[in-house]
Amino acid sequence: MTPILLNHMGNEENEYINEQVQVKNPNLDTMEEDILYHFSLSTKTHNLPEMFGDIKFVCVGGSANRMKAFAQFIHQELKLPGNPGDIKDICEGTDRYCMYKVGPVLSISHGMGVPSISIMLHELIKLLHHAQCRDVVLFRLGTSGGVGLAPGTVVITEKAVDYSFRPQFEQVVLGKVIIRNTELDEGVANELLQCSSELQTFPTVIGNTMCTHDFYEGQGRLDGALCSFSQEEKLEYLRKAYEAGVRNIEMESTVFAAMCRVCGLKGAVVCVALLNRFEGDQITSSHDVLVEYQQRPQILVAHFIKKRLGYII
Amino acid sequence: MTPILLNHMGNEENEYINEQVQVKNPNLDTMEEDILYHFSLSTKTHNLPEMFGDIKFVCVGGSANRMKAFAQFIHQELKLPGNPGDIKDICEGTDRYCMYKVGPVLSISHGMGVPSISIMLHELIKLLHHAQCRDVVLFRLGTSGGVGLAPGTVVITEKAVDYSFRPQFEQVVLGKVIIRNTELDEGVANELLQCSSELQTFPTVIGNTMCTHDFYEGQGRLDGALCSFSQEEKLEYLRKAYEAGVRNIEMESTVFAAMCRVCGLKGAVVCVALLNRFEGDQITSSHDVLVEYQQRPQILVAHFIKKRLGYII
Repeated sequence: MTPILLNHMGNEENEYINEQVQVKNPNLDTMEEDILYHFSLSTKTHNLPEMFGDIKFVCVGGSANRMKAFAQFIHQELKLPGNPGDIKDICEGTDRYCMYKVGPVLSISHGMGVPSISIMLHELIKLLHHAQCRDVVLFRLGTSGGVGLAPGTVVITEKAVDYSFRPQFEQVVLGKVIIRNTELDEGVANELLQCSSELQTFPTVIGNTMCTHDFYEGQGRLDGALCSFSQEEKLEYLRKAYEAGVRNIEMESTVFAAMCRVCGLKGAVVCVALLNRFEGDQITSSHDVLVEYQQRPQILVAHFIKKRLGYII
Repeated sequence: MTPILLNHMGNEENEYINEQVQVKNPNLDTMEEDILYHFSLSTKTHNLPEMFGDIKFVCVGGSANRMKAFAQFIHQELKLPGNPGDIKDICEGTDRYCMYKVGPVLSISHGMGVPSISIMLHELIKLLHHAQCRDVVLFRLGTSGGVGLAPGTVVITEKAVDYSFRPQFEQVVLGKVIIRNTELDEGVANELLQCSSELQTFPTVIGNTMCTHDFYEGQGRLDGALCSFSQEEKLEYLRKAYEAGVRNIEMESTVFAAMCRVCGLKGAVVCVALLNRFEGDQITSSHDVLVEYQQRPQILVAHFIKKRLGYII
């Protein structure tokens, strides 16, 4: 059996109607209860509209600690009442993901890789649907390997591309491969770039982001447990990526972009490059430098949120 | 560009020489330092042979809490000195994975999905290599959806199969797709089944395990944010899976099996079925029932370890 490629894009894509978050599953409205298993939440045990109805911005990232730190940071930035240290994990019933709500901002961790973020996105989109949220913007704040960029540069993704630099995501549905489009919202990307020029604190570019399914062989690293290629072959692959507009490599952007498009959510991917892959594979910067780099996407997105909420004119 | 399929199995497979753990990367021995970034360990800052040289059993699983609980459980089972509650996370410098060492047993979390476990396996195999470990057996202790099995049944994997029920794993290397074999060690699987009949506390079967790249569409669930198929089409797919010998579905087994084979590690996948997918998609059992189910693979593998170490004759 070989994969069957079907072009379902025409069917699934929609006009980015920025209204209520759209699930694409007629079964959901007929279910008596919907258990969001990996969030440890349910429509029967939790009043989702009351808990989440006012959400306008959802920020997701791989690391639980980092998304907690972001929640505390945005709490301070929005000058909300209460102690940011008292912030509570809404998903404390499970250790799969963590989730913090700060005013109209939801901060959630998604682990590493497409499958892990995909589970989270299914349950997040159902949560936003059940909570009747409107006009939500979704951000992925991540870390990545830079391609021809100085470490610390922030990349706003134009298109999320696969290992062959194609702007598409292959989703298996009942044993068949379906192709989904992975272009992200141009307006939000440009608004983020504008925020960066207002901040003037770190270099920011718009470029394509390559999404791989592993960190070592798939990204052409020479330092994994397995490596069957030479330094020259690695550099040749990275050069081809650069020529195709790729400026960074991470592991979640294609499914993030694809699901945002299908469900009519405006989405953006903002990742800092921890190293320049033309110069090496290992992440050798000090802990303090890496911590500062990881704050950059947070600072950028916080600025975006503050502008949208009218904190900055 | 379409994927190029290369059969590299002949090159990579080896004879399961149960000696020192084998990395397949000539670069590693020429590196001055190897930073195991996602473990927050390094060959320069940590004495890996001293810390890990006596490891004989590595147990991995998705959830950090569960792998901590397993470490405490095996501590009691092996009647080791000290308080199981004092057990320390060796990877406390990062929140990507957690790791606990209990005598000759290492317990590590790997998150959800192939990419997440793949990063962990690369760094684990390098760790075992640097630590000069010998005769290591690797177990994945997980949760899964059962296919035609009563909830609570434990499945020992014979072959890990993909969405088309093929015993193979597709790995992208520099933009090309390589196929790797995913058969697991028959001897360890049979030894585990023997352990189960000695314990006589829960039903256990040997069968194929289907590994998917998401929890919803890829596994034919009707309750995701996206669903484009009917109940009948779902059941038809599950029936085909059952006919192909599939007894459970999870999200990590193919890359686990492939990497074990390539690196000459004896590996086994032991997952409990939390539900019977012919009967539904949502995990509706109570918290207590689910906790008890999740202990079953731990009890089985603990019995195996105790037998191997001569605690049980």
